[in-house]
This record gives sequence, C-alpha cells and structure tokens, in this order.
Amino acid sequence: VAGAYSSSSSSSKLTSDASKVVCRGAGLSKALVGQKNIFNVDCSKAGSNMLLVGVHGPTTPCEEVYVKHMGNRLYNVTYTVKDNGNYIVIVKWGDDSVPGSPFKVAVP
Amino acid sequence: VAGAYSSSSSSSKLTSDASKVVCRGAGLSKALVGQKNIFNVDCSKAGSNMLLVGVHGPTTPCEEVYVKHMGNRLYNVTYTVKDNGNYIVIVKWGDDSVPGSPFKVAVP
Repeated sequence: VAGAYSSSSSSSKLTSDASKVVCRGAGLSKALVGQKNIFNVDCSKAGSNMLLVGVHGPTTPCEEVYVKHMGNRLYNVTYTVKDNGNYIVIVKWGDDSVPGSPFKVAVP
Repeated sequence: VAGAYSSSSSSSKLTSDASKVVCRGAGLSKALVGQKNIFNVDCSKAGSNMLLVGVHGPTTPCEEVYVKHMGNRLYNVTYTVKDNGNYIVIVKWGDDSVPGSPFKVAVP
C-alpha cells in the first residue's frame, strides 16, 4: 500500500479529480517579504484526497507555510518568505498538480 | 530521481536526494485531537528541493498543517486533527516520498 492516497489506491483514483481544484488569491502571483501571503484552495468538487503545498525561493526555502482547512474541503494557505526573487508555489491534490500549479510568484 | 521538482531545473534534479531526508517525532505515529502534534524533518543532507506535507484522516481532512523552516533545511511540522481514527501523513521532498512516508498515525 506504499504511496497510498497518491496514485495507488483505486478508491482515491475513483473519487479524486485534481482538475476540479480551484486556487485563488494574490499570494499565487505576488508575495511580500515579512508579510502573510495568502491564497485559497477550493477542493470541494475534487473528491477525496489530501492537499499538499510547497513553496520554494531562489536560494532559501519558504519560511513558513500554514494550511488551514475551513470546512467542506476549502483551504486557506498562508506563507511567509524571507528573501526577494522568484518563487515557485506548488499545489497538489494527492499526487496530481492542480490547474495553474506550479505558480510563479514574484517577491519584489 | 525521476521528475523531482517537476517543473524544474536539471540542477535541482542532480542535487536533490529524498532518501537523505530524516523525519523524527511523536507526531509521525500518534496524534491527539485538539492538540499540536509535532514532528521534525531534516533535509540538510538532501540537497535543494521543496518540502511537501499532507495529512489526511479517515473521513475529514486535517484541520491545520504548519510547516516552519528552522534554518539549514531543518523543518518543524505541527498539525492538528479534529477526529479520531487512522490518519496518513505524507512527507515529500519534491516529487519523491521520504523514507518512512506514508506514515500511519493513530488518533485514539
């Protein structure tokens, strides 16, 4: 059962559809050093799976990533960065990238 | 090494090695409802990539997942759950699962 929830379990394959995930918010295109950068992820129509969020900068990793489930598979994501430059935000629903991911985020 | 950092550069493929990531902490095997469940992820020897953490329960998603970079690619992960049952914690370094992942976590 290695990799459960990813591509492996047949039940999650049947009920999970990453293409139905919708991401919205300013934090998907621009972020500011030392501030909370925010976006939302609506997985309410994407079946059952787990949300994975990763943020990486030009040299250092993202300082903090906070994912909060607001109910009904709506998630609020807050992250903070330390350095300016070009960041990448990856949003996955299980093993599959959601529409738009990887997001290119500029930190001026 | 396939597909590490999916969208990414050849250099990160060369320098990322998920097998060198070490996870430690009580939160990898047991968690309590309404409390902060914690584990650490040491990616200091795993090259350059991004950390992805996902937590899923028997019926509902994880309430909150908070990933904090402590410096030198050492990460502190805190998560909270709402329901008891059997949870799965997935830790990935880029596209690759780290040793031990998926972790099976009991919430009594």
